[in-house]
Amino acid sequence: MASNFGKTIQVSTFGASHGYAIGGVVEGLPCGHTIDIDELQQFLKRRAPGQNQLQTQRKEADVPEFLSGIVDGMLSGSPLAFMIRNTSQHSSDYNNLRDIPRPSHADFTARMRYGDKVDMRGGGHFSARLTAPLCVAGGIAIQLLREKGIKIHGHLKQVGSIQDSPIDMVHPDMNALASIATEPIAMLDHSKRSEVEELVLQLKKDGDSTGGIVEVIATGIPVGLGNPNFDGIENRLARTIFGVPAIKGVSFGGGFDMCSALGSDVNDAFTIKDGHITTTTNHSGGIQGGITNGLPLIMQVGIKPTPSIYKEQHSVSLSQQEDTLLVIKGRHDPCVALRAVPVIEAITALVILDFLGDIDHELR
Amino acid sequence: MASNFGKTIQVSTFGASHGYAIGGVVEGLPCGHTIDIDELQQFLKRRAPGQNQLQTQRKEADVPEFLSGIVDGMLSGSPLAFMIRNTSQHSSDYNNLRDIPRPSHADFTARMRYGDKVDMRGGGHFSARLTAPLCVAGGIAIQLLREKGIKIHGHLKQVGSIQDSPIDMVHPDMNALASIATEPIAMLDHSKRSEVEELVLQLKKDGDSTGGIVEVIATGIPVGLGNPNFDGIENRLARTIFGVPAIKGVSFGGGFDMCSALGSDVNDAFTIKDGHITTTTNHSGGIQGGITNGLPLIMQVGIKPTPSIYKEQHSVSLSQQEDTLLVIKGRHDPCVALRAVPVIEAITALVILDFLGDIDHELR
Amino acid sequence: MASNFGKTIQVSTFGASHGYAIGGVVEGLPCGHTIDIDELQQFLKRRAPGQNQLQTQRKEADVPEFLSGIVDGMLSGSPLAFMIRNTSQHSSDYNNLRDIPRPSHADFTARMRYGDKVDMRGGGHFSARLTAPLCVAGGIAIQLLREKGIKIHGHLKQVGSIQDSPIDMVHPDMNALASIATEPIAMLDHSKRSEVEELVLQLKKDGDSTGGIVEVIATGIPVGLGNPNFDGIENRLARTIFGVPAIKGVSFGGGFDMCSALGSDVNDAFTIKDGHITTTTNHSGGIQGGITNGLPLIMQVGIKPTPSIYKEQHSVSLSQQEDTLLVIKGRHDPCVALRAVPVIEAITALVILDFLGDIDHELR
Amino acid sequence: MASNFGKTIQVSTFGASHGYAIGGVVEGLPCGHTIDIDELQQFLKRRAPGQNQLQTQRKEADVPEFLSGIVDGMLSGSPLAFMIRNTSQHSSDYNNLRDIPRPSHADFTARMRYGDKVDMRGGGHFSARLTAPLCVAGGIAIQLLREKGIKIHGHLKQVGSIQDSPIDMVHPDMNALASIATEPIAMLDHSKRSEVEELVLQLKKDGDSTGGIVEVIATGIPVGLGNPNFDGIENRLARTIFGVPAIKGVSFGGGFDMCSALGSDVNDAFTIKDGHITTTTNHSGGIQGGITNGLPLIMQVGIKPTPSIYKEQHSVSLSQQEDTLLVIKGRHDPCVALRAVPVIEAITALVILDFLGDIDHELR
Repeated sequence: MASNFGKTIQVSTFGASHGYAIGGVVEGLPCGHTIDIDELQQFLKRRAPGQNQLQTQRKEADVPEFLSGIVDGMLSGSPLAFMIRNTSQHSSDYNNLRDIPRPSHADFTARMRYGDKVDMRGGGHFSARLTAPLCVAGGIAIQLLREKGIKIHGHLKQVGSIQDSPIDMVHPDMNALASIATEPIAMLDHSKRSEVEELVLQLKKDGDSTGGIVEVIATGIPVGLGNPNFDGIENRLARTIFGVPAIKGVSFGGGFDMCSALGSDVNDAFTIKDGHITTTTNHSGGIQGGITNGLPLIMQVGIKPTPSIYKEQHSVSLSQQEDTLLVIKGRHDPCVALRAVPVIEAITALVILDFLGDIDHELR
Repeated sequence: MASNFGKTIQVSTFGASHGYAIGGVVEGLPCGHTIDIDELQQFLKRRAPGQNQLQTQRKEADVPEFLSGIVDGMLSGSPLAFMIRNTSQHSSDYNNLRDIPRPSHADFTARMRYGDKVDMRGGGHFSARLTAPLCVAGGIAIQLLREKGIKIHGHLKQVGSIQDSPIDMVHPDMNALASIATEPIAMLDHSKRSEVEELVLQLKKDGDSTGGIVEVIATGIPVGLGNPNFDGIENRLARTIFGVPAIKGVSFGGGFDMCSALGSDVNDAFTIKDGHITTTTNHSGGIQGGITNGLPLIMQVGIKPTPSIYKEQHSVSLSQQEDTLLVIKGRHDPCVALRAVPVIEAITALVILDFLGDIDHELR
Repeated sequence: MASNFGKTIQVSTFGASHGYAIGGVVEGLPCGHTIDIDELQQFLKRRAPGQNQLQTQRKEADVPEFLSGIVDGMLSGSPLAFMIRNTSQHSSDYNNLRDIPRPSHADFTARMRYGDKVDMRGGGHFSARLTAPLCVAGGIAIQLLREKGIKIHGHLKQVGSIQDSPIDMVHPDMNALASIATEPIAMLDHSKRSEVEELVLQLKKDGDSTGGIVEVIATGIPVGLGNPNFDGIENRLARTIFGVPAIKGVSFGGGFDMCSALGSDVNDAFTIKDGHITTTTNHSGGIQGGITNGLPLIMQVGIKPTPSIYKEQHSVSLSQQEDTLLVIKGRHDPCVALRAVPVIEAITALVILDFLGDIDHELR
Repeated sequence: MASNFGKTIQVSTFGASHGYAIGGVVEGLPCGHTIDIDELQQFLKRRAPGQNQLQTQRKEADVPEFLSGIVDGMLSGSPLAFMIRNTSQHSSDYNNLRDIPRPSHADFTARMRYGDKVDMRGGGHFSARLTAPLCVAGGIAIQLLREKGIKIHGHLKQVGSIQDSPIDMVHPDMNALASIATEPIAMLDHSKRSEVEELVLQLKKDGDSTGGIVEVIATGIPVGLGNPNFDGIENRLARTIFGVPAIKGVSFGGGFDMCSALGSDVNDAFTIKDGHITTTTNHSGGIQGGITNGLPLIMQVGIKPTPSIYKEQHSVSLSQQEDTLLVIKGRHDPCVALRAVPVIEAITALVILDFLGDIDHELR
């Protein structure tokens, strides 16, 4: 099920929403680094479900148990393997879904791809629950990158049609972004957080959902990381980011807004500052020709409304091959985008770490 | 330089803008199919430069010479290799660029990545000229897919801020899209084509540029193609599409607009029609969980303004390490998006063909 | 540590000899097949240590616990993940080895590659203990292949200089091979088994070791499996087989003996038999041009003497950078080749299963 | 047709024995190095056919034309692409082979894999002629490695049953090996060269063929190159080496002879010499745990007798599905092993260069 990615840092995930456990394996982590497990657990908590009223009420502590690759808290060189036991699955909520695929979910396509016997309870291996192992791997990557001066932070650029205040693309306030990480709604603008809270609670009441845009910023990345053509920063990030359920678009720097701009407005002029070459604007999002230019890396990720809504929906009975109505049970987020910020940060960290492994590839 | 992609259909490109030749190699094409070389040449003409007043005046006929893989017009099973000789390069136009990197180009990052000796005349191997071999490979893929009932057509959804009329996402008029393929401006709405023409000629006069959005639609793709997680339809398409210069965003189906919608509005309800399971809307763009659901595959690609503009720009002298002004010579498109439609079609075709090779991978 | 292989069936292993657990993940197994866990356990027992006087006395039951990918004994489509807890490690036996590398072991090169902090107790992730997860994955592959009429059996072609009776390369007696699978010494010739037993017990007494050759035969493989050039049957098998510690050579069919033969003696003449094209001899080992021809696939794997011997050996102190003497403690096999037969069978099965996933790759 | 390999140095070949051209593309070569084209041509001459009476009389000058990647003799960073025009193919010699597969050739399996329309004239893309592009790529790799103090030389360890004098595995005489490179029979022992010449001329007269063993030695490789498990030095070398036609076995260091030795005889004892850690013997062939230990890398490659012999052979008519007799025309080598030495050297160089790109992969 295509559950792996990475070239020098290879990540794979396993498990199913309603199976015994989920987990992952990470190959290529540097030997000898000590991991702060408490910090990792705090990072996982940002993604974990059941933390507040805005989220699904499936409560999972999401505590990873390490099976290999760590000895006395230190990375030992061998593959890092871990599992997270599932504790709160309610498989009976999914009984009717064996026959009636949920609109805009993978229930139907998974069957067409893998046959009737594929385990799709709670979304099976397609479930967003599989983002938990990504956060374990990515949380470790974040710690390793910080040792190299690389910081990665995200915010909710938009929820529904409520927009956060824009970030400064040349000099983003990384401290401000860091400080909102543990907010239930990771927006910089306090008043917008209240608006979003109101919206989400209303959606919850209505049994409906909405989407959002997560923006991630990474600073401190060395100049000259990446490749042109088919394995540049955008290529590898986009490829990996689309591995998270519900994502419908990925853009960089000025993104789709640049399409209607003039070249003379959005070209990033070079200048010398403090003895280094930099640019005065950053519409490029820190990437030119697939390669980092030393400016902050900036990426936007568009997330669709949670497809699991409680309103009655039209669907079909696979066994009867006829139209029918569907009411979804289970416990779902009115807006998965809220919990997606650490996931996108985690993947960004893993991909940057992967590229750092590349940097000296070539013979010089 | 990461010049290859594909799993069952492996494509690689070679060459540089101002070298002897550009070309490509395609592995995995099915043995025994006859290729219509005239049709291929017509397809290449849509991308080729110097065709009209809206484009760069670098004239290249872009005629591929096949070195292997075709015997008497038929694919022979061995890798398809071809070259296109460069005939109209003006390397002297690039003399000042050895020292002064062009804003929002890869000149600077390429040097930081590969050192001073990297050949960047005309953009070198980073040049959009490398999309010509992609069109050779993709033009052949389009012919092979048509034999299987799969059609791929694109249009300019937007140029600057001028928008084409929207397509019907469930029942797109593929004939209408086919009919505009050879237009200099591939928009469905005639009046918008005039507006764009006026805009582009004005930009040309001003020495400025703008961007656009290319939308590609593919019909006839079998249900159940693709994978979840990190190698789904979106993953592989996005990864490859970002291999084309100037692209800043990729989205699918409802794209970023879905982020502000309600789940109840954008969920695609299943229904039975003519004995098949389909959906009444197609905000998913034909993909659920990374796997095709039989609806048209719909993708939007955001292209930034051509960074090569004739207006004076701020940059730096690498040798002097000081700020300087730059005036770009050479022959450039005021809007590369116009010539990008066949390129995005070509890549889409190659990726779908690649996935078709996957479809029976697994043991059943 | 390069712990993965496979294209359509992707296998990765994790764990270390003296860590908490070892295990593996297998991607791409077909959904819906029921696995016979008892049979799997019997297969694992053939490799497990501590079974008799000829082997290391480290006793490990090697019972896999499945973390995902199996629901009610049936493959569920998601990655198969499992772990085997380590229960009998004696890390103190390895205390002196932190400073003194064992001759012909990876202790020295592992340090040079991964630094001082790499966990090499008991061989760490380099240990032959990692062949246990390969046998879990391969034992399942063997069951899946049998459903398709493919059988894989091995024997000890040679131990020390004692040779088993040769197999018939065109019509191997697979039942005879199956019947010796559970013998402590998997030789067809009864008298040679006694000779080997005597040799191994003597080596044990002497604190010395010897090597051997494992030969594996696979029948029932469809004609036309594989590829020419760099991803043929031999390429993928050899690449994977060399992942097992202590292997120094891999050959196919007539192997190195063919180098001194005449073409007229070892060419495999085609003939029609029972309406099928076959060959009258099988010096090719079932493979021509990297592709199976329907004859039995035959491979020989040369295994060096266990490098862990109890005799005093010359080595160096890494900290003192001076020559020293080394006496190895721990519990070791006088001839690892004896336990390698199921490992080679397992890998062969995984590689063939991987190729079966390829067979319909290409568009036709 | 699986025509590519390599991770940081990616090589692909194209072309067919009787097509317009053969050639290759090499990605990842370091930018800025000057290539000695004359020296490269001398290297190619060692493999080229028609040089003397011991070889096939197909005369091909094998002069590569570079299409990209070299500017003024210097590697420019973009993929190196080149072609070699075929000039001396006699396709009519192969007319009868469309229906009658040659014993121990890929004619039959290629058809079963790719269908009737696959171009197999002269072996098509399966032909040993495809080793010419490997020698272009590898000849360049040899030059690049020499700049780093790495030398690679081979000899014919055996032809038929005639064995060359053994090399010193700890201190091989690389000058002596270099000096025999241009000999028609690359053996160190002069008298054995005469014996081989006599044998080959007799085989030529008889219309028969024989095989041989090529041994390659590489010195100067840094300690700590490679990986354990499935991507070590042996794994990647063996995988690639089996991409050359007619190879039936690959072994390292003491090879298959170690299987019958005692551990106490073949363990390589560590010692300090001139302030460095080394070993007093080199049965390991310079590799322990998949990683180089600084001793010479030593590999043996077993090559079967040329399957194209002029004696009448038994085969089948595919169209008639009946047994028939076959007489092969064309121009063939009585012993392809003679021309294989530079090919094995070339591949060894490419694989080592590929690993050197890996060496700094990991974050430290």
